[in-house]
Amino acid sequence: MRIGAIEAGGTKFVCGIGNEHGDVEERVSFPTETPEVTLANVINYFRDKKVEAIGIGTFGPIDIDPASATYGHVTTTPKPGWGGYDFLGTLKKEFDVPFGWDTDVNAAALGEATWGAAKGLSSCVYYTIGTGVGVGVYSEGRLVHGLVHPEGGHVLVRRHPEDTYEGFCPYHGDCLEGMAAGPAIEKRWKVKASELPVDHPAWAMEAFYIAQAIAGTILLLSPKKVILGGGVMHQLQLFPLIHEQVQRNLNGYVNHPSVKEGIADYIVSPGLGDNAGLCGSVALGLEALKRS
Amino acid sequence: MRIGAIEAGGTKFVCGIGNEHGDVEERVSFPTETPEVTLANVINYFRDKKVEAIGIGTFGPIDIDPASATYGHVTTTPKPGWGGYDFLGTLKKEFDVPFGWDTDVNAAALGEATWGAAKGLSSCVYYTIGTGVGVGVYSEGRLVHGLVHPEGGHVLVRRHPEDTYEGFCPYHGDCLEGMAAGPAIEKRWKVKASELPVDHPAWAMEAFYIAQAIAGTILLLSPKKVILGGGVMHQLQLFPLIHEQVQRNLNGYVNHPSVKEGIADYIVSPGLGDNAGLCGSVALGLEALKRS
Repeated sequence: MRIGAIEAGGTKFVCGIGNEHGDVEERVSFPTETPEVTLANVINYFRDKKVEAIGIGTFGPIDIDPASATYGHVTTTPKPGWGGYDFLGTLKKEFDVPFGWDTDVNAAALGEATWGAAKGLSSCVYYTIGTGVGVGVYSEGRLVHGLVHPEGGHVLVRRHPEDTYEGFCPYHGDCLEGMAAGPAIEKRWKVKASELPVDHPAWAMEAFYIAQAIAGTILLLSPKKVILGGGVMHQLQLFPLIHEQVQRNLNGYVNHPSVKEGIADYIVSPGLGDNAGLCGSVALGLEALKRS
Repeated sequence: MRIGAIEAGGTKFVCGIGNEHGDVEERVSFPTETPEVTLANVINYFRDKKVEAIGIGTFGPIDIDPASATYGHVTTTPKPGWGGYDFLGTLKKEFDVPFGWDTDVNAAALGEATWGAAKGLSSCVYYTIGTGVGVGVYSEGRLVHGLVHPEGGHVLVRRHPEDTYEGFCPYHGDCLEGMAAGPAIEKRWKVKASELPVDHPAWAMEAFYIAQAIAGTILLLSPKKVILGGGVMHQLQLFPLIHEQVQRNLNGYVNHPSVKEGIADYIVSPGLGDNAGLCGSVALGLEALKRS
């Protein structure tokens, strides 16, 4: 099989070709410019690739309601030119193949459930913690949508008692994204996150916020795996700190080995590494092909 | 059709017969005693009823994993005699019909999605706020399970700045249940909740806590309806207070009419009223019959 995949990020686009085993056979990337310039690059790339389907996992917010008149559009992003842009429709005019269309984080969750850390499981939640915080949700064997798509990066968190940083989210100030995304670390400690030593108190504070959101997710959804990706999670010293804080938050209430002795194998890095997004888009394309 | 339904509560059991339209044709109730006494009453009731299936929506926590050796058991409840009891197995020995088995709140969510306030929608979340707080989750047309079942009554909340009450949850102190279930209201204000006037500041504080959990649920899952049942929610003055607080928490970030001008029709009372639990158990029985 030849499945086209588009991982559409706010700063760069990655396009590639994958197969039904999740292997990515080739890939290119280019910066995210205006939608017209960027989609022209995408169309050029796929022009002669003879793909059977295309999966798109994109930054958002996006309209994912097939019954909506603006299905396939980017909705309210501040990114110049992209607000209201008909991303999916533009590609459908060029390629007569089935299309998968979802958020980048839902794509990553599906990729992880298909070939990665949650392979064979009926549920997982994928967090990306980088310049923002995004959440993809896979439950009972399906990606979760509703009114819109999950936006769990913006849940409220309790402030750390020693934290005086006000948070940078323009909507909520000190929500999870406002307190725990990469820019919050830099603004709070006045240094790039990558320059902080692994034993710096910044990491315990970071884990404090991330663990609250994860504990809430475990309580509400009981996912079979929690996967933490994104640039901030390259700081692997965060994992044991998060494990400990999640257990402290749950305090024994959820009675399952995965959140007790097995927690190091329950809250994990992406099994697909930095390919989670692109592989996830392959998985979206495969699902679209199966439905067609 | 004749579907048996069991709404198994911590203080009383309700048993009844329903049909595929969600009509409940008859019902009985009796107090929850030891499992042996209580289940003998259940078995007696259904003995000559000629039901085609039985749905059970029960207090928990329970084992809902069909692959588990203790599937159908109550797990770690402090209720005398019930911890580890084989609730489902005891009934299966007596009645050779398909059985549905889930939590009371998941049952209520399914009932509301089948015949109630979320009829025809692909998702809803059902909160019961009474002596405790429970949450049922229906998403993409299915009830949500995972490691265990949703336990969203125990999510962390931010304390109200004027609240000095410490919370009564034995696991988490001041989680949602600890701060917002009926006993918290009584302990905080030293008076029965039902005796507080409708304009008492207790209700704004109550809404403050409930709205945090709902806003978090909307962000993570984006359900198409949020349904609030249970004894505390008989205080209908809570609804506008909750609507306002949810909007304040989201602060315009989720761009959908349901959480803006349509919020009074989005966060609502159960369409099935106090029948949500029993009708939900009928719906569980119907699903079991369809699967069989």
